[in-house]
Amino acid sequence: MKTKFINEANNITKELLEGFTMAYADQVKLAKENIVVRKNSKSEDKVAVITLGGAGHEPALSGFVGDGMLDCSVVGDIFAAPGAQRLFEALQLFKREAGILLVVLNHSGDIMSANMASQLAGRVGIKVKMLITHDDISAGLDTPDDDRRGLAGCIPLFKILGAAADAGKSIDELYELGERFNKNVATLGTAMGKCTHPQNNTIISDLPEGEMEIGMGQHGEGGGGRQALISADDTAEKMVELLATKLQLKAGDKTILIINGTGSTTLMEMSIVYRRAAQVLQEKGTEVVFGRIDEILTVQEQHGFQMIIARVDDDHINYLKNYMSNAPYWTAIGK
Amino acid sequence: MKTKFINEANNITKELLEGFTMAYADQVKLAKENIVVRKNSKSEDKVAVITLGGAGHEPALSGFVGDGMLDCSVVGDIFAAPGAQRLFEALQLFKREAGILLVVLNHSGDIMSANMASQLAGRVGIKVKMLITHDDISAGLDTPDDDRRGLAGCIPLFKILGAAADAGKSIDELYELGERFNKNVATLGTAMGKCTHPQNNTIISDLPEGEMEIGMGQHGEGGGGRQALISADDTAEKMVELLATKLQLKAGDKTILIINGTGSTTLMEMSIVYRRAAQVLQEKGTEVVFGRIDEILTVQEQHGFQMIIARVDDDHINYLKNYMSNAPYWTAIGK
Repeated sequence: MKTKFINEANNITKELLEGFTMAYADQVKLAKENIVVRKNSKSEDKVAVITLGGAGHEPALSGFVGDGMLDCSVVGDIFAAPGAQRLFEALQLFKREAGILLVVLNHSGDIMSANMASQLAGRVGIKVKMLITHDDISAGLDTPDDDRRGLAGCIPLFKILGAAADAGKSIDELYELGERFNKNVATLGTAMGKCTHPQNNTIISDLPEGEMEIGMGQHGEGGGGRQALISADDTAEKMVELLATKLQLKAGDKTILIINGTGSTTLMEMSIVYRRAAQVLQEKGTEVVFGRIDEILTVQEQHGFQMIIARVDDDHINYLKNYMSNAPYWTAIGK
Repeated sequence: MKTKFINEANNITKELLEGFTMAYADQVKLAKENIVVRKNSKSEDKVAVITLGGAGHEPALSGFVGDGMLDCSVVGDIFAAPGAQRLFEALQLFKREAGILLVVLNHSGDIMSANMASQLAGRVGIKVKMLITHDDISAGLDTPDDDRRGLAGCIPLFKILGAAADAGKSIDELYELGERFNKNVATLGTAMGKCTHPQNNTIISDLPEGEMEIGMGQHGEGGGGRQALISADDTAEKMVELLATKLQLKAGDKTILIINGTGSTTLMEMSIVYRRAAQVLQEKGTEVVFGRIDEILTVQEQHGFQMIIARVDDDHINYLKNYMSNAPYWTAIGK
């Protein structure tokens, strides 16, 4: 039985992208089916920043296409990587001397498409450099980068890279800036309740009432084990400790803290979690220079959130805070 | 049993406002308990725009305090109007020759507090003018303004009034501008599923699986009657027809269209609904000049949305689109 506001299940991705680009027509448009680009493309002497990923995680990833952020998002069907051929089409659209930085979240389908499309692009002289994100720490603190998934930590990275690319940084400078962020960002997900696949109503994750799981991935994959629901403060403390340990945070570090709601979590709850998490970061002597409480990468109606902490340097802070973006789901900044 | 990420139920409002103002410290701060103001107050020769309302609807209303939008939001406990005394304290903070425009959503508790606080303010020479919103049409198309509730149509109104106030418009000009918008905006809510009160877990609204209700208010009040769940397109068409009839839309009108998610509704679903609604508005010969798909006023984890349509004139369009705001939950614009 259908339980969502949709039409034909097979048309979900096409229709949602049409609606999205109609609502934000001042900022974005569809260049081809499932290829979202800025309304006004930037000059070709600047590096293009492109990403790819399945639908079903809105506003990610296409909601962050816009001036000062992504140039293009290549979209697959619900929770499915776009095919290499479609990604190759997007790379062809952005062929330029300055090159294309392709940001890929570490999920096997996305990596496979990105590798194949990059090879196809290489054969026709399109310059592509891949930057892989793997901010999830739920597989364990000593897990090698390759075995860690890309979660919502990609969104602040898009902001940093997009601002720097628009400001004229070279592809090598952007890669270095991005890797410097990747080495200093860590994300952990927590969920309770259930959520469903919109096309077939399969239950993606299902936690009994009163239980929670820390370490949940964005397709419902289990991580750190189930436990009885604890308070928001206890949850925040436990998650900050794990993230701070991974990042080896120390007094004097400058940090950013983002609480990303994965679906039905209220901003009320996320604000309460943010409060205690920020307090703990301050108690550790770090300075939280940038905060966000928002839905930036969701998992349908999952009741849960991802906590993102990064140690940032002056470059990261500058590109995060001092440059505007008109991407539809990036809120304006304080300056 | 607790089913949300919270601590003590009685501390929810205090803690969420602390977390919110910590995350967005570049833009907002707490002037007193439950009184959210801009970080940098504007000059006293300009009209202050203030609103009030219960918590539990985040990001509304405090998420829209910031340069270019609200000067202040006075917050009550979950779903409860703030007391007149607290609102009076806020009015005292913003006493100025230019006056205070107090925007009140038409709900009995909020109206009562606003009336009492305005009287108290009048006695000590504080100039306050009240503007009441009543955009909900679910009580019927011929229902008098006083009997129609204020729903999420207040958010674009805040943007228009905030920009105009910052630009130096007088309190009478602002009142006229706002009333002109109020006469031309209409909102309708739709919901399915259930949602709960965060403090006592009472079920606020409870619709059996496979049923929906068009006309649902933001505290779960029923409206247009239950029906079997229909497709997103059929839902959009039905809602646009009702709203367009109320507004007596005609070819050539310029319109805005906002789909406001009330909690666990995915942006995926809301984008699909937006698509068909915008198509119908275009088929009617109106030009949709501004769109949004976002959570701007929620009802906890309610699965549903409010559709807001307004007929706008050049003043409204100008203040909506050509002025920046750094309010934490207002996304940047296309210019």
